[in-house]
Amino acid sequence: MKLLEDRIRRDGTVLPGGILKIDSFLNHCMDPVLLNEMAGEVARLFGSMGVNKILTIESSGIALAILVGLAMNCPVVYAKKSRSLNISDNVYFSDVDSYTHKTTNHVVVSKEYLSDTDRILAVDDFLATGAALRGLRDLVNQAGGEFVGAAIAVEKVFQNGGNDLRAEGMRIESLASIAAMDDYTVTFAGEL
Amino acid sequence: MKLLEDRIRRDGTVLPGGILKIDSFLNHCMDPVLLNEMAGEVARLFGSMGVNKILTIESSGIALAILVGLAMNCPVVYAKKSRSLNISDNVYFSDVDSYTHKTTNHVVVSKEYLSDTDRILAVDDFLATGAALRGLRDLVNQAGGEFVGAAIAVEKVFQNGGNDLRAEGMRIESLASIAAMDDYTVTFAGEL
Repeated sequence: MKLLEDRIRRDGTVLPGGILKIDSFLNHCMDPVLLNEMAGEVARLFGSMGVNKILTIESSGIALAILVGLAMNCPVVYAKKSRSLNISDNVYFSDVDSYTHKTTNHVVVSKEYLSDTDRILAVDDFLATGAALRGLRDLVNQAGGEFVGAAIAVEKVFQNGGNDLRAEGMRIESLASIAAMDDYTVTFAGEL
Repeated sequence: MKLLEDRIRRDGTVLPGGILKIDSFLNHCMDPVLLNEMAGEVARLFGSMGVNKILTIESSGIALAILVGLAMNCPVVYAKKSRSLNISDNVYFSDVDSYTHKTTNHVVVSKEYLSDTDRILAVDDFLATGAALRGLRDLVNQAGGEFVGAAIAVEKVFQNGGNDLRAEGMRIESLASIAAMDDYTVTFAGEL
């Protein structure tokens, strides 16, 4: 999506360790107009798939997800992160390793909010190793629902999580796909 | 706001300890159409106040805040919660006690995203003791900005945080104001 790629080129910075800092418009500080354009593109890409629910993960996926939910007229569920092992019987849970924070979180969703009749679109801001998407797919599978696919704001293609998941049959649409980064520049997939 | 009060009456439940569970439509599982109507009402209430930025706190304030930002054409910043004392020089931080979770969080905002020219509207899902709003106001004051007011989805009036802050001069608009709760029923302020 050219609008997003242009914004990353203009306002993104690359930090040591392969971390792309785009928190001036996509998380921490968010541009609602840009996010709403992105949500419209997601709705266009997945509009014919019979999606009835959006699933994301706190915190940074929530803003895009609620706008996708509005565009697709679906409720939006976010999986909650919990460091605690004190998990009740009333939730589905999975484990997600965070690349950025070097931690493992349990992610939980109340059983009330996922069911075997659901057709779920996952929405998240970043795709790198694919850990978050694996966790969300696991939650949907536990509920017996259908994981229709995933809409991602920014995919770091060179970390391979997306392509591994596509090879497993997951449909993933990323609005910006970064093929390579060095300390100063970002190269998008279409530019290689 | 009648739409929200009706929904609370229909789908909300009161848990022991004075916790109102409305996570089937306002957090955890969110109704984007309802939230967007609420955002429109916030924009109507604060539209003439020269607000240039929305400030909320992760995670449950983000969905309403991004829709308010879209309605008011303002960027949206969310304060991040951190249990860590490892706070850098590049952030403003404050402490917020959570009534629901019985914990204290540091909340931090990068200094890049708050400035002395900002006119800030705080947005959050709940107002009970007022701890979160005090923390957000503290962050704005540290930056030298103007705290224009706060828009809240659900205020628990009987916990007095809102009225204490109003007595200090804060403008607070709550879309639903709960005057009393027992194990079965919620009584709104207009019904007393």
